[in-house]
Amino acid sequence: MPETMTRVLDKVNSPADLKELGINELYDLSQEMRELIIKKVNTIGGHFGPNLGMVEATVALHYVFNSPVDKIVFDVSHQCYPHKILTGRKDGYLNSDNYLKYTGYTAPEETDHDLFKVGHTSTSISLATGLAKGRDLVGGKENVIAIIGDGSLTGGEALEGLNNAATLGSNIIIIVNDNDMSIAENQGGICNMLTELRENNGEVENNFFKALGYEYHYISDGHNIESLIETFTKVKDSDHPVLIHMHTIKGKGFKPAEVDKEPFHWILPNTLDHLNDAPSGEPKESYESITKDYILKKIADGEPIVAMNAATPGVFGWNKSFRDKLGIHYVDTGIAEQQAVAMASGIAKRGGKPILGIMSSFVQRTYDQLSQDLALNNNPATLLIFWGGISNADATHLCTFDIPLISNIPNMVYLAPTCKEEYVRMLDWSVNQNDYPVAIRVPFAITYSGVEDKTDYSILNKFQMVEQGEKVAIIALGSFFGKGKEVKALLQEKLGINATLINPKFITGVDKEMLESLKSNHSVVITLEDGELDGGFGEKITRFYGNSSMKVLNYGSHKEFTDRTSMDELYTRYRLKNDLIVEDIKNLV
Amino acid sequence: MPETMTRVLDKVNSPADLKELGINELYDLSQEMRELIIKKVNTIGGHFGPNLGMVEATVALHYVFNSPVDKIVFDVSHQCYPHKILTGRKDGYLNSDNYLKYTGYTAPEETDHDLFKVGHTSTSISLATGLAKGRDLVGGKENVIAIIGDGSLTGGEALEGLNNAATLGSNIIIIVNDNDMSIAENQGGICNMLTELRENNGEVENNFFKALGYEYHYISDGHNIESLIETFTKVKDSDHPVLIHMHTIKGKGFKPAEVDKEPFHWILPNTLDHLNDAPSGEPKESYESITKDYILKKIADGEPIVAMNAATPGVFGWNKSFRDKLGIHYVDTGIAEQQAVAMASGIAKRGGKPILGIMSSFVQRTYDQLSQDLALNNNPATLLIFWGGISNADATHLCTFDIPLISNIPNMVYLAPTCKEEYVRMLDWSVNQNDYPVAIRVPFAITYSGVEDKTDYSILNKFQMVEQGEKVAIIALGSFFGKGKEVKALLQEKLGINATLINPKFITGVDKEMLESLKSNHSVVITLEDGELDGGFGEKITRFYGNSSMKVLNYGSHKEFTDRTSMDELYTRYRLKNDLIVEDIKNLV
Repeated sequence: MPETMTRVLDKVNSPADLKELGINELYDLSQEMRELIIKKVNTIGGHFGPNLGMVEATVALHYVFNSPVDKIVFDVSHQCYPHKILTGRKDGYLNSDNYLKYTGYTAPEETDHDLFKVGHTSTSISLATGLAKGRDLVGGKENVIAIIGDGSLTGGEALEGLNNAATLGSNIIIIVNDNDMSIAENQGGICNMLTELRENNGEVENNFFKALGYEYHYISDGHNIESLIETFTKVKDSDHPVLIHMHTIKGKGFKPAEVDKEPFHWILPNTLDHLNDAPSGEPKESYESITKDYILKKIADGEPIVAMNAATPGVFGWNKSFRDKLGIHYVDTGIAEQQAVAMASGIAKRGGKPILGIMSSFVQRTYDQLSQDLALNNNPATLLIFWGGISNADATHLCTFDIPLISNIPNMVYLAPTCKEEYVRMLDWSVNQNDYPVAIRVPFAITYSGVEDKTDYSILNKFQMVEQGEKVAIIALGSFFGKGKEVKALLQEKLGINATLINPKFITGVDKEMLESLKSNHSVVITLEDGELDGGFGEKITRFYGNSSMKVLNYGSHKEFTDRTSMDELYTRYRLKNDLIVEDIKNLV
Repeated sequence: MPETMTRVLDKVNSPADLKELGINELYDLSQEMRELIIKKVNTIGGHFGPNLGMVEATVALHYVFNSPVDKIVFDVSHQCYPHKILTGRKDGYLNSDNYLKYTGYTAPEETDHDLFKVGHTSTSISLATGLAKGRDLVGGKENVIAIIGDGSLTGGEALEGLNNAATLGSNIIIIVNDNDMSIAENQGGICNMLTELRENNGEVENNFFKALGYEYHYISDGHNIESLIETFTKVKDSDHPVLIHMHTIKGKGFKPAEVDKEPFHWILPNTLDHLNDAPSGEPKESYESITKDYILKKIADGEPIVAMNAATPGVFGWNKSFRDKLGIHYVDTGIAEQQAVAMASGIAKRGGKPILGIMSSFVQRTYDQLSQDLALNNNPATLLIFWGGISNADATHLCTFDIPLISNIPNMVYLAPTCKEEYVRMLDWSVNQNDYPVAIRVPFAITYSGVEDKTDYSILNKFQMVEQGEKVAIIALGSFFGKGKEVKALLQEKLGINATLINPKFITGVDKEMLESLKSNHSVVITLEDGELDGGFGEKITRFYGNSSMKVLNYGSHKEFTDRTSMDELYTRYRLKNDLIVEDIKNLV
């Protein structure tokens, strides 16, 4: 659309304005919004398919309901861009200077139209039951609406919510946005059940939602605004739980995304400009590629390996062609991290060799399974924790909490490789041993030591003395080992100190012998870890030295939810910049 | 039965022996087992109703299937006593000298017939999918059977498992043991769905399990051994997922337990001998009674309080008469801790005042909801964490991990009252404020300071200086405050040290000003906490003093799963006995 033509969107500053529009204008508005979303996401990156699929439904929602009096909760909220455009934040989409003004997730600090800060899946129904219960307690009358994708529906929290909402006894409207996709393919009986419903226009012999007690409505075309408005109007102000099963097309309106949904779930900037480019040479080696090669080799050797994940194969580069090669050696549990960890424990118990990949932020979704199903039973599963570390991520996707979470669970062995050679050795050791549940914190960027690692990792909590110096010892964990080397060099340069450098390798324990030995000719120990200090690795070192005169400084992130804060700001705040660390040390020696 | 008569059980030393018995002998055997269970549980305490309900079904299972080749996974495993009797452990039931020989849960270290150490609910299906997948990978042919109660079925992990198992594509047999009860009443749509199935002999319009793709079988009388054997035989060696819905009676064979199921879920020793005793005078004041009184008073005052829990109201003494008084101010989510926390967040967002009780061990089941749904959104819900502390509990029910789990989540305020007066003040502060999600670690035994607490808890992380001394400072957290006082007295007596005593009150942060002030006339600080040291409270204190010459000793439990270990042994191992603590201090001052 030429920039000079009048947009329908120009008339829409809040949901109330929608109600004045005719049906054709609503369609035009949808098209305008779709174009804005495509342009913005292709510029700064973001969730693509999920937002394109929700344009018409969001328009219809705000046409029928009365937000923010009526409360709409978006599950995982990676489909909330249309909602943002309609609720006073269109400037973040119209003007590229404002593209970064609003987060890509719902954010109550931006507007009353957003109820919760959400970025993990499967929470909307449970949160909505709370809003509804609160409403009933304080005597409110509004509608409470939870919008949840078919992928998110397989998460335990969502299913607990679905069970509870069914008997709430008052208004709650659950909209299942069924686009026949999770991030990758959907998994399990729920997926098949939804497919059957879609294929039969909502009329089947055994209706899952009716079995739970819901009044069930089916919308066959979630892009047909008349049909959406009709159904939403019908259920509005219902005095009992209602479930709308709405069929939409993920990536709607951008053909390549409709056809090949998985790569368009979330895209990098400028993706759309390079759709037809030939692959650019050999892909670089990475921890992802090494892991994939290792898995394929072990399977070829006849090992009962199972590469597992919970709906996020893309995080580890496990694309379709890799998954097809794995055959029965691949398990995607769908969005179901608890199931993934418990299943891994069961597989290991029966002699299989599970290798379960999880993003650091999402390992939070399965604490008790790590503790009870896996660690208490001491089954030899291998977990690969990806993306752990300080970042400028959205508050909902921070990856700084996995060390406190995993490393304080008894029996768990949590390893921190500093280079390819160590990673390969650790992975191979973990897969071949039968004594411990092991997690490996896979660094983001690959580095090389150039020396084959021959460590016997069955000797637990044995740190590596990399360079023996004096006065100051630097214990640099995993992805911060490079920083440890830099600090050592700077200490030499600035203070003339030949510091000791230690690669701890183990997150879950301390090398008492080595720490004891440092006492003779060191007065300061510093720990460096790429994650939260509270409950983390460094505090274990500090506790060890509590009864001695050794000074210990711990470096890592603070206990806080940061929100798209720049790395530079965070490193300054946490005194993680090398010169700040050296300054601190200078004050002590 | 007179002791001299021949028992059928005398012929049964392993499941294989069952297969030689006729049907009447199987019934006689069941009756013998039932009597043994009643006698043993009434002697040492334990799960009563769940085990009585599973006697015939367990006999039939072991008659039809071939354990340990066929693998049976008992959910939560509080119904495994019949299984233990039949799998080589009858000596633990026949001879009262052996009553403590075996744990009350499945335990692989006791026998190959037990696959997992299990005591938290809702894990069996997921664990079984792992066993089945492992079997398929290594080319096994056995049956994999998961037995799960209707109560456990509402937990997210169970529902994730149910979704995944449905499309496993090979043998897995799920037996839903439906006794129409959770620990208390069941909750939600699943409960209603099961009721409808029971009332219609398994024939209903919308079958939930068939909707998920299961071959569904209904057993109307789970105490009819012929019927059980017939159905189990039919599904044995199935090449696809099968679900058996079996109706049993919780407490079967002991009338009072059949009639009033909740109090007989788990019983104390000698309960059955005092069924008709009149209540013995006024119940003593306890943290449970104080909490109940507070809740009732606030509701009477018109406050939108909601007393919430996830299926364990008995842990807080929330009995039926209390719940009935609450009306709409009560929510039991069923076994669904994730739902409970997320719902509490939603209620708080909408102006309600949720007070959610959770047992320490079970708060592990909802880490991500604490972090994302609650803390990230900073909604003012109140959580009461019960039973936190070192104990001689079974490995599956340890309560030492809640401090590392909760206290390292940003925004959470975790409080540790040391007496009634503080508890009342903290609870009231939490309910009336709107700024933070608050958890309170409720001590087990009540104590009194005798002084009204007027602390303003909105000044976060402010410790209380109880007695100002010198040389040694004792920071004694929550339920260990009494120990702190004892250690102070012993230090005076043995070493003539007038130690400083501090009540920190806040678990989630440190009082930097007070800690700083200690430096002037103290050389040793000790921390006392009733829980795991790794990632706990004391390490935060130690980290604070890392750059100083202050010596710090942290006391608490080690990172380990203990299993029915005596308190005396644990206190010695952890050097928590007062004389050991004083000895350590003596070595430092």
